[in-house]
Amino acid sequence: MHKHGGDIYRNQGLVDYSANINFFGMPEGVRQAAKDAIDASVWYPDPECEALKDAIAKKEGVPTEWIFCGNGAADVIFSFVLALKPGKALLPVPSFYEYRQALESVDCRLQEVILREEEDFCLQDTFLEQIQEDTDVVVLCNPNNPTGQLIDQKLSEQIAERCAKSGSYLLMDECFHDFLEDGQQHTLVPKLGQNAKIFVLKAFTKMYGMAGLRLGYGICSDTALIRRMEAVSQPWNVSVPAQAAGIAATKEEEFVQKSRTLMAEQKAVLLAGLRDAGLNVYGFAANYIFFQAKPGLEERLRQKGFMIRNCGNYDGLREGFYRIAVRGEADNQAFLSALMQAEHK
Amino acid sequence: MHKHGGDIYRNQGLVDYSANINFFGMPEGVRQAAKDAIDASVWYPDPECEALKDAIAKKEGVPTEWIFCGNGAADVIFSFVLALKPGKALLPVPSFYEYRQALESVDCRLQEVILREEEDFCLQDTFLEQIQEDTDVVVLCNPNNPTGQLIDQKLSEQIAERCAKSGSYLLMDECFHDFLEDGQQHTLVPKLGQNAKIFVLKAFTKMYGMAGLRLGYGICSDTALIRRMEAVSQPWNVSVPAQAAGIAATKEEEFVQKSRTLMAEQKAVLLAGLRDAGLNVYGFAANYIFFQAKPGLEERLRQKGFMIRNCGNYDGLREGFYRIAVRGEADNQAFLSALMQAEHK
Repeated sequence: MHKHGGDIYRNQGLVDYSANINFFGMPEGVRQAAKDAIDASVWYPDPECEALKDAIAKKEGVPTEWIFCGNGAADVIFSFVLALKPGKALLPVPSFYEYRQALESVDCRLQEVILREEEDFCLQDTFLEQIQEDTDVVVLCNPNNPTGQLIDQKLSEQIAERCAKSGSYLLMDECFHDFLEDGQQHTLVPKLGQNAKIFVLKAFTKMYGMAGLRLGYGICSDTALIRRMEAVSQPWNVSVPAQAAGIAATKEEEFVQKSRTLMAEQKAVLLAGLRDAGLNVYGFAANYIFFQAKPGLEERLRQKGFMIRNCGNYDGLREGFYRIAVRGEADNQAFLSALMQAEHK
Repeated sequence: MHKHGGDIYRNQGLVDYSANINFFGMPEGVRQAAKDAIDASVWYPDPECEALKDAIAKKEGVPTEWIFCGNGAADVIFSFVLALKPGKALLPVPSFYEYRQALESVDCRLQEVILREEEDFCLQDTFLEQIQEDTDVVVLCNPNNPTGQLIDQKLSEQIAERCAKSGSYLLMDECFHDFLEDGQQHTLVPKLGQNAKIFVLKAFTKMYGMAGLRLGYGICSDTALIRRMEAVSQPWNVSVPAQAAGIAATKEEEFVQKSRTLMAEQKAVLLAGLRDAGLNVYGFAANYIFFQAKPGLEERLRQKGFMIRNCGNYDGLREGFYRIAVRGEADNQAFLSALMQAEHK
C-alpha cells in the first residue's frame, strides 16, 4: 500500500505536519452539526444528497444537477474513473497518488509528464502538445499536491480548450483552492458552463478540518457523466454526519476568511525559518510547503517529536523532498527550532 | 436510479417500514462512541482500520488479515467486484439490487436464476448445476433480501464446494445473519479457512441501527484478494465515526440478544396480523417479512402514514410484492390496524 501522510495511528505522540489539514481544526458549527447527526444516523443517508447538493450549488454558483458527492474527494476520483473507464490518461508527476491508484483500478494506461526540478516543478506550456485525440482523461491538481505550485491560469484555460477539442475529459483537482487568497484567479469553475469536458474536484476535508468525516464533490456540466457516476456508485456513499457537516460548512465564511489570513501569517513564519535553515523551498500556494533537505530529515524530526511527509515515494521524486503543513504559532516555533537542530548536526 | 426503501428524506412524517433496520435503533455505547469520534474526525481515518479489524477478528474468530472494511456493505461489494472484474456472474433473483449495480459497473455479464413463486422463492438444488467453469462469481444472500428466505445449509455448503472446484468466487451476503436465533446453523464463516473461494459479507448497519454511519466488512481467507481489494479502494474509505462505532458495536452482545428476542416476539405479532388480513406470507427469517397483497398497497398505506417497500422493481418480481421491517409494539399495532383497513376497502 502507498504510504500517505497523516497516519497518526501508528505514530502516536508526534505533532503531525504530514497531513494538509487546516490547523484551526473543525469549525464549531460543523462539529455540532456532525454530532447532532449521529442521532439521525439510525437511518440510511439521503442517496440523492439533496440538501447538501443545494448548499454546494449555492456556494459554488452552479446548478444542483452538475454536482456529484462522494465519501471524500478520493471516492469521487474512483467514481469518475469507473464511470469513464479511460484507456489512456495524461498527468504530470509528482502529484496526488490516488489519481494513479484509481486509474490503475480500471487498467488505464498512464502517460506521465515529469515536472522538472530545474523548472521548480511548474507545469510548462509544452504539456499542451501532449494532449492528443487518444487522450481520454487529463488529470491536473491546482495548487498541486505535493509541490504546492499553481498552474498558470492562462495555461489551465488553454488545456481545458484543448481537451474540449480532443474530446478528453479534464479532471481539475481544486481541493486546496479554498486556501488561496486570490482564488478567483485560479479556478476553472467559471468555465464549466461553456466546456462540458471540465470536471472540477473539491473537498471539505482540508479547509473545514473534517478529514475523518469524508466529504468531497465534483462539478461538471455534462450531466450525463454525473448520472453515469451515480450509476457506478452505491446510493449511500455519503454518510449522514458527512452530509450534515458539509451543509454546516457552507455557512462558515468567516471561519474560512480567518483561516486564510492566519494561515498566510504562519506560512510566512515557516518559510522564513526554512530559508534560514538553508533549505530549498519550492511551492507553497496552499496550506503546505514543499522543500528539499538532506535525506533522513523525516527520521531526524521524528526523534524530536514531529512527523513530516517524506515525498520520496512519489513518482518523479526521490529521497530528500519533503512536505509540511502549516500549523499554529506555538507548534511552528517548536518545529523550526527542532528543524534547525536537525539540519545542523 | 433504482428506488430503494428507507428514503425518509422525501417521505417525511411517515412511519418507516421500508428499511430493514433494528427497531431498537443504535445502542447507547455505539451512539456515544460515534459522537466522541467527531472530535477525532479532524484527522484522516486509519487507512488500515487496525483497531476495528482487531475487534471484528475477535468477534468472528478469524485472522485480522482476512478482513476488508468498507463504507457500508455496498462499498465492500463494489471493491470486491472491481478487484475481480468478473466476466460472468451467477445470481438468483429477486435479490439485493446492489449486486447487479456493482457487477454492471465492470461490464460483467449476469446469469440470473429466477427464484420461483411456486417454490416460495427458495433456492433449489438445481442451482448447483448452473455453476460452470466460466462462472467467475456466484452471489448469494442468506437470508435473502427481499424474500426473507434462508438457503438450506447443506445446499450452501455444496455450492461453496462446487465453487472451489470450478474456480468461482462465492460472495455470500450474510448481512442479516445477526438477526437469526440459530445463526450457527446458517453461516459459511466456519468454512472460510478450508475454502479460499468463499467471501462472506457482513454489515453493522442493520443490527446496530447505524445505517447512516456506513460500515460493512468482508471476510475471506484468500488474502491476495483482500490485498487486491485494498489496491482498488481509496485508503480512507471508512470514516472515523464509523470505525469507532464498529469497535463499540462488537461489545454489544446483550443488545444483540435482547434485539433478537423482542424482534421474534414482534415478528410473530406482525405475521399473525398479515395472515389475518388474508395475505400470502413468504419468508421472514430476518427482521423483515416478504408478502404478497393486492397491488397498490404501498399507496393505500402511505395515505395512512406508513411507508413500506414496494418490491415491484426487483428483477423477478412484479407489482403486488411487498417487504416490511419488524418494528416495535406500538407501531405494529397501528400498522396492522391500518393494513386491515387498507386491505378491506
